[in-house]
Amino acid sequence: MAHDLHGFFYPRTVALIGATDKRDKPGTAILENLAHFSGAVYPVNPKHQTLLGHRCYPSITAVPDKIDLAIIALPAARVEQELDAVHQKGITRIILISSGFAEAGEDGMALQKRIAIRARQYGIRVIGPNALGVYNTDNGLDSFFVSRERVSRPTPGRLSIISQSGAIAVILMEALARDGMGIAKVVNYGNRLDIDDADALDYFANDPATGAVAMYMESVADGRKFLNAARTFAAQKPLVIWKAGKHELGAAAVASHTATLAGTYGLYQAAFRQAGAVEAYGFDHLIDAAKALALMDYPCMGDRLLIVTNGGGMAVAASDQAQRDGFTMPTMPSAVRERLHQAFPPYFVTTNPIDLTGSGKNEDYETALREALPHYDAAMVIVLMGATTVNEEATTLIARACHDAKKPVACCILQGLGYTQDAMHALLKLGIPVYPSPERAVRALAALRKATQRRGCDKQTKL
Amino acid sequence: MAHDLHGFFYPRTVALIGATDKRDKPGTAILENLAHFSGAVYPVNPKHQTLLGHRCYPSITAVPDKIDLAIIALPAARVEQELDAVHQKGITRIILISSGFAEAGEDGMALQKRIAIRARQYGIRVIGPNALGVYNTDNGLDSFFVSRERVSRPTPGRLSIISQSGAIAVILMEALARDGMGIAKVVNYGNRLDIDDADALDYFANDPATGAVAMYMESVADGRKFLNAARTFAAQKPLVIWKAGKHELGAAAVASHTATLAGTYGLYQAAFRQAGAVEAYGFDHLIDAAKALALMDYPCMGDRLLIVTNGGGMAVAASDQAQRDGFTMPTMPSAVRERLHQAFPPYFVTTNPIDLTGSGKNEDYETALREALPHYDAAMVIVLMGATTVNEEATTLIARACHDAKKPVACCILQGLGYTQDAMHALLKLGIPVYPSPERAVRALAALRKATQRRGCDKQTKL
Repeated sequence: MAHDLHGFFYPRTVALIGATDKRDKPGTAILENLAHFSGAVYPVNPKHQTLLGHRCYPSITAVPDKIDLAIIALPAARVEQELDAVHQKGITRIILISSGFAEAGEDGMALQKRIAIRARQYGIRVIGPNALGVYNTDNGLDSFFVSRERVSRPTPGRLSIISQSGAIAVILMEALARDGMGIAKVVNYGNRLDIDDADALDYFANDPATGAVAMYMESVADGRKFLNAARTFAAQKPLVIWKAGKHELGAAAVASHTATLAGTYGLYQAAFRQAGAVEAYGFDHLIDAAKALALMDYPCMGDRLLIVTNGGGMAVAASDQAQRDGFTMPTMPSAVRERLHQAFPPYFVTTNPIDLTGSGKNEDYETALREALPHYDAAMVIVLMGATTVNEEATTLIARACHDAKKPVACCILQGLGYTQDAMHALLKLGIPVYPSPERAVRALAALRKATQRRGCDKQTKL
Repeated sequence: MAHDLHGFFYPRTVALIGATDKRDKPGTAILENLAHFSGAVYPVNPKHQTLLGHRCYPSITAVPDKIDLAIIALPAARVEQELDAVHQKGITRIILISSGFAEAGEDGMALQKRIAIRARQYGIRVIGPNALGVYNTDNGLDSFFVSRERVSRPTPGRLSIISQSGAIAVILMEALARDGMGIAKVVNYGNRLDIDDADALDYFANDPATGAVAMYMESVADGRKFLNAARTFAAQKPLVIWKAGKHELGAAAVASHTATLAGTYGLYQAAFRQAGAVEAYGFDHLIDAAKALALMDYPCMGDRLLIVTNGGGMAVAASDQAQRDGFTMPTMPSAVRERLHQAFPPYFVTTNPIDLTGSGKNEDYETALREALPHYDAAMVIVLMGATTVNEEATTLIARACHDAKKPVACCILQGLGYTQDAMHALLKLGIPVYPSPERAVRALAALRKATQRRGCDKQTKL
C-alpha cells in the first residue's frame, strides 16, 4: 500500500482553490508554478471564467474531474467552510497554504483546532496550514507561492528537503539551484495540523527518488514518533538536521514563529545521535553537509585526510579546520613522495598538503590524486581557477581520479563570477561536492564522516 | 616625506621585465592587466619588438624613460643578474613576482638571501619574491598575474587588503567583486624579503583612500614591529586579521607554504587584542567582518540587537547566533509595540524579532526600523526576496531608515541567482553590508562591536 504522503507528491489531478491573477496573491504564483506539473490542473474561483489559459470553476464541487489533491489558498476565515465542499467533492488530501492559524494567536489556534477535528472526521489528510506544501522534481508538482522569476528551482537530483519553515525551504532551494545541485522533493508542513516531520521522514525512507534528506526543524510534533522515523530513515539513507532555537534567544524566536516549544537543545542532540542523524551547525553547514551526503554515500570513512592545492594559503586554512574536525593528515609515504617528485617540477611541495603552486596544471591534480589518494581516506582538493595554468578541464580529471580511487572528496573553488561558477557547476555534475571556502569543504567532509560513523562504522575500519 | 610604500602604489612609470605573450606565463597576464594603469608601461623582453601594442625593449637599460617601479617576472635563476641592470638603470623599487626562493628549499633560500643583501647594497626596496605585488583602484595599477577573464576585480572602495598568501588575496578580491563590495588597495608581499606586513599596515594607516584593512597572515616577520604598526593602525581605522596556521596541522602546512614558523597561536591572539585588532575565524568571516568594518565606522556600539524579518525561520537562526556572539535581544517597548500593532496587519509579530511574515511589504520594513531601531544598538534585517510582496525597492527604504537612525545594520539576503543578487548589490551600494546567511550577518555585526570595544568603547556607553 502506498504511503499516506505518496498522494501528496504524485496526484494525477490538482485543484487550486483561491486561484487568481492578482499580483502579490499566493494563488497567482501557485497557478503559474503548476504550469510545470505533468498532471491536470483545475483553478477554482467564482470571479473568473479562465485563468492563465485554464478554464476556471466557480466552486470545487463544479470541477468535472476526480480531484486527488486540493491546494487551498483562501483567507483563514474561509477555510473552515471550504472544508465541507472539499469533503463533498470526495477529496481526501489538501495542502493548506493559508496563514492566520496557530502562529497568529489564540483565535487562530482555536480555528486550527476546529479544522483539525473536522478534517479528521472527514478523513482528509492535511499539509499545513501556514505552509508552502510540496515540490517534486519527478512530475513538476510545485505548490510554492514563490514565483520562479524570484526564486530559481533546482534541477532533479537525489536530495530531499523537509523544512518546518517555508522561508528556509525556499532559500535552501535557491542556494542549491545557484550551486547547480539537484534535488528530489521538498516538503514544508508549516503548522503541521496533521502531516508532520516524522511522516515526511517515513515517506522519504521508502521514496526511491530520495537518496538523502536535509531537514530544518525548530521543534518536533511528537518526540517518540520522530525518533523512530529518524532512526528508520538514517539506517538506510544519510540524514542531516539543522535544529534552530538552540539557545534562549533562539527558543524565544521559535515561540513567536511557529507557536511551538523549542525544547531543550541537549535532548535534541541526544536524539539525533541516537537516531544516527548528523547535526548541522547552521544554514551554510546544512547545505554543505547535504551536498556531501547526497552525492557520496560511502559505507565507511577513516580520518586520514589528503589535501591537494594550487594555493598554499587555502591549504593552511583547510589544515586548521581539519584539526578542529578531528581529521589527521599523515605525511606522504616516501615511495609516493619519490614518484611525485619525479613527475613534478622541483618547486612543487610533495608533502601533505600537496602544493602544486600557481604553476600547477590540470594533469598535475590527476597525478597527485592517483598517486596519493589510495593512501588516505578522503581528499580535499582546492582549485584556484585564477591560475592561468588550470582551466575547467581540471574538473573532469579530478572527478575521474577520485571516482577511480573510490574515496570521498570535497572540492573548494571560490564561488565567484562566470568562470569559477562554471567550474563549480561542472564538478557538481560529475558528482563532486564543491564549496566556496576551505573551511566549509572540510566541515562537509567531517559531516560525511560522522554520518558513516553513526551508521555503525568503526573508527578502526579504514576504507 | 612620502612613505616607502607610496612609490609602489603610485609610480608614474612601470617596467615589466619578463613581459611576454605566451599563454600561461605570468608576464602575459601582468602586461594585460597593466593596460588599466593610468601611467606609462614599458615591457622588457629581448625576443619581442612589440607586445600588446607597446614597444618592447631588449633590456631594462634600453628603456628611454626614468622608471619608478620594475615588476620582475623572470625565472628565479635570472633574477640575481637582473638586479645589477635594474640598479644600473637607477630603479629603487621592484616587485619580484618570481617564485623558487625561500619557499622552494635550501638552494632557493640561499638565493633569496643573496638577493636581499644585494638589494640592500643597491638601495632597492623589494616586494616579494613569490608575490603578486600590488593592486590599486586609484590609478589602475595591477601587478597580479591573474587574468581578468579568470578573476574579476572589485570596483573602488574603502577597504584595503594585506595578504601573506597570493591565492588568498586573489580569492578575497573575487569574493568582494562578486558581492559588489569595493576596495582601495591590495598588497601581497609573498616571501617578504624586504617589505612586510608591518610596513603595509604602516602605509595604510596614513593612506587617505584606505578606511579599513582586512589582513591574512600565517606568520609575522618581526613581532614587535608588527605589534607597533597594528596598534597605530587600529587606533585610527578598523583592522580585522585572519591568522591561519592556528593549530598543529595548519602550522605544519605553513612551514611548507611560506617557509616560516606559524608560532604559538595564543601569542598572536594576545597581540591582536593588545593592538586593538579584531580576529576573523576563517575565510568567510574575514570577508564578512571586513564588509561591516569598511562600510560602517561607529564610535561605539552596545549589545541590544533588533531583528526584522519576513521569514521566521531565519530570525530563529539569527537569534541563536546572537546569543552565541554575546548580543541581547530586549523585548519591544510596549509603546513601540502598540504603534507597530496599529500600522501592521494583526498577524505580523511585533516582538523582537519583528516578523513581517511572507506578506510583509517594502514599506513595512521602513516602518519597523523607524519605530523600533532607536531603542536598540544595532539591527539585523532579513529580506527573503522570494516573497511577492517585496521587491528591490525595499533596499532603498531599509538603507534610509538605518542611516537616519545612525545605527549599524547588517542585512541577510540569500545570495542566489539574478534577482536576489541584484538586491544584494543595491544594498551594498547604499553602504549596507549584506550577507548570504543569518549566522554570517550576526557574526559580522559582532566583529564590528568588538572593533568598537577594542577602540576603548565601554560596554555601558550605548549609542
